Parts: sequence; C-alpha cells; structure tokens
Amino acid sequence: MPKQNLTLFASFLVAFITSAVAADKTTAFSRPDLAAATTLRERALADGTAYQLVTSLTTEVGPRPAGSPGDKAAVAWALREMKLLGFANVRTVEAVVPHWVRGEAEFEVLAPWPQAMPTLALGGSIGTGSEGIDADAIMVKDLEALAALPAGAVKDKIVFFSNRMERTRDGSGYGKAVTVRATGPSAAAALGAVGVVIRSISTSDQRFPHTGGTRYTINSPRIPALAISNPDADALVRQFESGKQVRLRMKSSSRDLPQVRSASVVGEIPGTDLAQEIIILGAHLDSWDPGVGALDNAAGVGIMMGVARLIAGLDVKPRRTIRVVLFANEEFGTSGSLAYVAANEAEIDRHVLGFEADFGAGPVWRLSSRVNPAQLPAVDQIYRALAPLKLARGGNDARGGADLDALSKLGMPILEPNLDGTKYFDIHHTANDTLAQVDPDALRQSVAAYGVTVWLGAQYPGKWERVITPKPPRR
Amino acid sequence: MPKQNLTLFASFLVAFITSAVAADKTTAFSRPDLAAATTLRERALADGTAYQLVTSLTTEVGPRPAGSPGDKAAVAWALREMKLLGFANVRTVEAVVPHWVRGEAEFEVLAPWPQAMPTLALGGSIGTGSEGIDADAIMVKDLEALAALPAGAVKDKIVFFSNRMERTRDGSGYGKAVTVRATGPSAAAALGAVGVVIRSISTSDQRFPHTGGTRYTINSPRIPALAISNPDADALVRQFESGKQVRLRMKSSSRDLPQVRSASVVGEIPGTDLAQEIIILGAHLDSWDPGVGALDNAAGVGIMMGVARLIAGLDVKPRRTIRVVLFANEEFGTSGSLAYVAANEAEIDRHVLGFEADFGAGPVWRLSSRVNPAQLPAVDQIYRALAPLKLARGGNDARGGADLDALSKLGMPILEPNLDGTKYFDIHHTANDTLAQVDPDALRQSVAAYGVTVWLGAQYPGKWERVITPKPPRR
Repeated sequence: MPKQNLTLFASFLVAFITSAVAADKTTAFSRPDLAAATTLRERALADGTAYQLVTSLTTEVGPRPAGSPGDKAAVAWALREMKLLGFANVRTVEAVVPHWVRGEAEFEVLAPWPQAMPTLALGGSIGTGSEGIDADAIMVKDLEALAALPAGAVKDKIVFFSNRMERTRDGSGYGKAVTVRATGPSAAAALGAVGVVIRSISTSDQRFPHTGGTRYTINSPRIPALAISNPDADALVRQFESGKQVRLRMKSSSRDLPQVRSASVVGEIPGTDLAQEIIILGAHLDSWDPGVGALDNAAGVGIMMGVARLIAGLDVKPRRTIRVVLFANEEFGTSGSLAYVAANEAEIDRHVLGFEADFGAGPVWRLSSRVNPAQLPAVDQIYRALAPLKLARGGNDARGGADLDALSKLGMPILEPNLDGTKYFDIHHTANDTLAQVDPDALRQSVAAYGVTVWLGAQYPGKWERVITPKPPRR
Repeated sequence: MPKQNLTLFASFLVAFITSAVAADKTTAFSRPDLAAATTLRERALADGTAYQLVTSLTTEVGPRPAGSPGDKAAVAWALREMKLLGFANVRTVEAVVPHWVRGEAEFEVLAPWPQAMPTLALGGSIGTGSEGIDADAIMVKDLEALAALPAGAVKDKIVFFSNRMERTRDGSGYGKAVTVRATGPSAAAALGAVGVVIRSISTSDQRFPHTGGTRYTINSPRIPALAISNPDADALVRQFESGKQVRLRMKSSSRDLPQVRSASVVGEIPGTDLAQEIIILGAHLDSWDPGVGALDNAAGVGIMMGVARLIAGLDVKPRRTIRVVLFANEEFGTSGSLAYVAANEAEIDRHVLGFEADFGAGPVWRLSSRVNPAQLPAVDQIYRALAPLKLARGGNDARGGADLDALSKLGMPILEPNLDGTKYFDIHHTANDTLAQVDPDALRQSVAAYGVTVWLGAQYPGKWERVITPKPPRR
C-alpha cells in the first residue's frame, strides 16, 4: 500500500473509532429524531413553501434596499407571513439603517472611440453633480497595481480597475476581487484621482453591471465610483490597448439621506425541554435595488422560513427553540445583525448554534461546520443522516455569513450546508436578480439539507459547546 | 422491408440517379475548384479575420442605428476596412433612412404591488410626453385574444400582451410571436387603448427587454409602445393573476426626427470569364441602439467580408464576381436594400445567386436553398463538398434574409447556410448584444461553411436559372 493510501486508511480508521466512541448513549441521536429527520427530508423535497415565499417577496415587495419604501414593505411582509405560517413570538428588532439613494448614473467613453455603457453607482458612492466629470483615464489591474504607479500618475484622472473575478463553487473568488470595490475609490482618491470605474465583481458575460457597497475612509476625499459589466470592461480594455488616450465621462445623482429606522423580523418554533437554548436561522430581508433580490436574499428567507415551518409540522416537537431572524440591512454594513446582538445581549450565550442562508437558491453540495472539536462526532452523525442528498463533507473551517459574524465571534458554533455558488456571482447585485434565476428543485433540495441539519442540531443529546479558536478570515 | 423503409429506399435511389445524371461533364465542379474549396475551408477554420472585424466594428463604432452618428461612423468604417482588405470597386449606394431617437423610457406597476421594471420603447414608437401615462391595464395573450374582447374593453386602458415566444433552432418561433410587436400597438389603438406594453419577443430568462420595430397603420391613432423582459412579464402576469386591478405607468421621450441620408457599402472580388454575373453576399451594417450589434449584425458583416477575403486569397480566381453589400437600415424597414435594388435596376438580372448572413454568429448547422429545381443537383454537389462540416441537408424552401427579399421576389436564387438560431433570440435587439456573445470557433466554422458554398456558387459550370415559384411566406 503506497504511503498516501496508508495515511488515508489511517485517517478513516481514526474517524471511525472517534465516531463510534463519541456516538455513545449520551450523544447519539435517538431513533425517533432520526426518523423525523427522514420525514422532514422527504416532505421538504415535495414542499413548495420556500418557492412560494420567494415568489411573494419578489413580486409583492420587489426591491427593498435599506431605508427605502420597499424596506418598510418587506418588514410588514415578513411579520404577516410569519404569523400566517404560525410562528410564535413574531416581533421586530429595531435597527438604524443608512438611506442611500441611487439616482441615475451614466458612463461614457469620450475618446478614442465614443460609446456609452450601462453602469451602476457603487452603494454609498457620492454623486458627481449635474455637470458630471470628464477626465482622462488610467487603467490599473487592482489595488497593488495602483499602489505601484509613479507619484502623480492618477492625479485629476479617472481610475479604471480592470481585474476580473474568478468563478468558483465556494465563492472564494469574491473575497479576492471585492477589495477593489470596497476600498478602491478611497485608495484612488488618496492619490488625487477624481473618479473611479470598476469592472463589476462578476463572473458573468451578460451585460449587467453589479452594484455593492463601497467604504470611504475618513482620511481621503470622497470621489464618485461606478461599475460596468464584464463585456463593457473588456471593450474598455480594448480602448486602452489601442494606445490612444482614453477619456471618460461619469455622471451620477447618487446621494446619502439621513439614516432611518428599519427592523429585523423574528419568529420562533418554541423548544421543549431545552427551550432556553436557541438555534438561530439567519437570512436577510433587505436587497440591493436594481433587481428584486431573488437570490440575494429572498432565497435565504424562503429556505429558513420553509425549514421552520416543516419542523413545526412534525409530530415530535423540537427540544431547542428554532428562531428565524430576517435581518435588516445586511448589504450596507450589517447594522441589522449588530442591532440584534446589542438588543439581545442578555441572552447571547443562549444562542447555542447558528445557521445562515445568504448564497443563493442552491442546491446544497457540502456540509461544513465551525464547531467545538468535541462536537465533530455530532456533525458526523448529521452528515450520515444527510446521505440520501449525496453531499460532500466540508471541513470545520466554515466562515458563516455576514449576519452571523458578530455571534460567531462570540463563540457560537455554526453548521453550514454550503449552497452551490458557481453561478451566484453572475446574478448577485444586478438588475437580473429575479425569480427567473431560482430553480424550484434546487430550492427544495436546499430546504431539505438545511431542514435535516437544523432539526438534528435542535435535538442533539449533547451540549453545543462554544468555539474558542479564532474565526478564520473571510476568503 | 416495411413500406416506410421501401419508400425511403426509393427516395434514395431517385436522389442517387438524379445526382449521377445531373453531375455530368457540363455541370460537375472541376477538380481544381473542389480542391480550392477544400483549401478555403481549411483556411477559414484557422482564420481570425471575421472575429477581428466583429471586434473592431463593435468596439470602434458600437451602436449604429439608422440615422445616428454611429450609422455614419459605420459607413466610414466599412469603406476603410473593405479597402484595407483589398476589395475592388469599393463604393457607397445612398439610402434615405429614418432617424428615430429612443430617448429614455420608464415603466412602473402602480397597483396592486408597486414596482418599476426595466423597459425599452419599441422602434418607431411615439413618446408619452413628459407627464407619462397612468392608466388601468388589461392583459391579453395576443392579437387574437385582443380581437375577441367585448367592445369597449380596452378603451382608455394600457394593453399588456403576455404571449411568450417559443425557442427553435431555425428561428421559426420569431415569426409566430413578432406580429404583436409589429401590429399590436395599432390594433390596440384602434380599440381605444392609450398605450401598449409587450412581453419582449425573446427566448431569454435574463432581464433584458428587447426592442424592435413597430409599424403604425395609417388609420389608427399612434400610441406609445414599450417592451419588458420575460422575468418582468412573468411578474406582471402574477400581478394580473392576483385578481386585483392592475394600474401601470409608462413614460418615454422617444421621437421621430426628419429622415436623413445614409448608405450601403459595396465592395467586390472581380470575376473572370463570368465577371458580369454577380454573386451577392448581403449583411447589414446598421444595428439597434441598446447593444453594440455584435450578433445583429456585426457577425454577418464579419462572415461576408471574411469569405470574400479568403476567396480573393485563393490561387484560382472566381469566375463570377463576388459582391459584398453591407446594407444600410435593415432594422427599420430595409430601406437600404430597397434603395440598392432601385439604384441597380439595370443590372438586377445579373444578380444570379444570393447569400445573406443575418442570424448571429453560428455555427452553421444546415444547408438550405431556394433555387430553380434544375440546379438542385448543383446544391447536392456543394453539400457533398461541405461534408467535413457535418451539416444537415435542408429543403429548397429557404426564406432568405430581409435584405434579399426584394431580389428574391425578382427570381434570384438563394443558397442558405443556416446559422444556428437556438440562442439568437436570447440576445437580439437587447443591450446584451455584445462581443461576449460571439463564439470565435462558431464564427470561423460559419465562414468556412459560407466560404465553400459561395466559392462553388461562383464556379458553378452551369447556369443559375431564375426561380419562378412564389417565395414561401416568412415564418
């Protein structure tokens, strides 16, 4: 047996023994709980609730950016739907949210070859004033290339960031590419630039610009920032590669209004003997404004509400309390989840296990976790219960979504059924984020995978211990 | 042998004998001509000229709707590129073209569930005035459903046409669906409607509205007409299906300016002993304005110019003259091709065979024709020369493109390498018609298929007789 195979065999052996030892009487799931997991899975695969909720939220509310009338309508929608589904303790948790207004944006190449291109302002960008900005332009790949330019190279210019995001299943290409959107405008402004245009953080060849938040630093001038689609970025690269001076025009009426109050919406399936322990299911209610937020994140809302409803419909009641939290304002700094943590400070330690769905409409392809190593055997048991869904087994290095960041940093363990993100960044933050992008079968499968995992998480005979290792950096 | 197989066998036998008899010394292609066809095919499959031309036209000119500055720039581009490629007799043929200006359009559902949706005015539509139009709306599937409504049903209302186009390889779904776009606004206006919104004539689930020309009739009031994408049309259908009164808002600043002069651009590869006979290769230079007209029709321009260049590069010179005509204004009533026919009245009968490429960037999947039955054996020979490209054999009922309509009605035979249109109507007439939609391999294969067919058409030892059967109706 080659050394590699021997090592593999040894790993299996260790895993088997660990699992066999751990799954003793005190921590093995009961037969009725495992039977209920099977029932839940089968019902989920035939259940249309999640898709109906996604349809309803996108059709009846539509775009719901923080602070907008759609945001308010979404809160009312969530309260109504949670009550209709029979959830307990339905309530809001107030949050202060920004109220940035997109307005209209225009982007035009003036030279060498005049051409207008569809554009979107980055979230939070200032406007240009009604005259717009005409300026010579310079192309750089990314922040490193910007930093490497000679002094004065971008002064009074518009900077175009040309780097293209890489497509991956786990979304890891996003983290690498997105820093340009988050910090590019301030980095360019610090060097004297008057405006920024980025190639959208996108994996698509469709002509949709992608928006998404930018973060101005306090010590740089604020300059306007726009995004263009991949096909247009390619065309702009060709203009630069002609060797002729590129001149651009930007115009945007974006503006920041005073912050307003919004709310996260909470509903529960009460637990029984361990009711004081909370399993939190997080998704976010807000969306960006160009689309109707079907993948981002009506899908997550539908999955979590669908899971809770299926658990409520079982003959066995959950031991721990299932709490669905539809967070306000994930997109613009997660003020909803931060407010939730602040408002629930007294009971933070009772959040014993967390789930988040904020990566599209599935299917789920892998089970990852970030739990105390003592509970890894429990994750193994859950993984075995998921066997009919044929998932891969991920590591114990789950990142969790942005809305669980604060709770996660406080040591709350996470189970993460990984939604397939291969095509997610084709759609995310574009006008194209509509119901047509949601595959009902993949959504049902996702409800099944989340459902089984949440249910067994709620029934775990052991204790969900806190995680003490530092949270891995967001990729 | 079952009867069906017997019939099939008999057909083969007849075809074989016909072919063997017809391909006698007087009409069989010469060995050198067939060898040159092979050379041409091999060179085409390795040649980047067509893709370079598509890149150049979409990048350096971009949108070029009739009458616009882009239209003028496209004419200058074509003159320059034809000369650079070494074509002979490069010249323009003047045409009067409309100068409709799109302006901005907005579409909004006001009730029951307010939501704005991306929209495009139909080409030629009047605007709404700056106040826009707010009106209750009525949904009908198509023109038949509109006609079946009780008297007064659409009076003072906005009519929404909800029918969805069917996806097909040969584009036959388009003809069935497009009448709503062409004649729906006038039909609704005749019944008292104040505006029309159509589900785009589209096979895509991406959120791109499709424009395209509408034709007002002289005896109905002109009312504004907009198109929305398939995902939005689905969402609007759900609003209607709620049973609540749907109220819509339309706003558009579209306007018609006085006609202007534009031009088709012509260039030739001169023939030798049959130089007076013209093989015409047509594509159109204009495009709709939301995209950069890559598939519609820079691809056709690239294919035809690429074919002519490859033929010019052969050791053997063509017997008949190859004439590339890049027509002005196909999109808005084919005034370019009509003007071409008028300007060339004296030599119309010398147009002995026609080709058109106006259905995207390939690949070619079938060879169809519309020739005098006496030349079907020649088509069979050409089809055999195309064997390495593995095409299907189409019938003798080719439609030809819109720009060859006038010549075709005068009896000019047509050979039609059929471009695969399965995905063409995902893109056509949208902002998404960019270079990213062009597959360079498929484009090269298309140049190869067209190239072999054009070349052998030019070398045919027989006479291309006129077609006397009526042209089949456009599907």
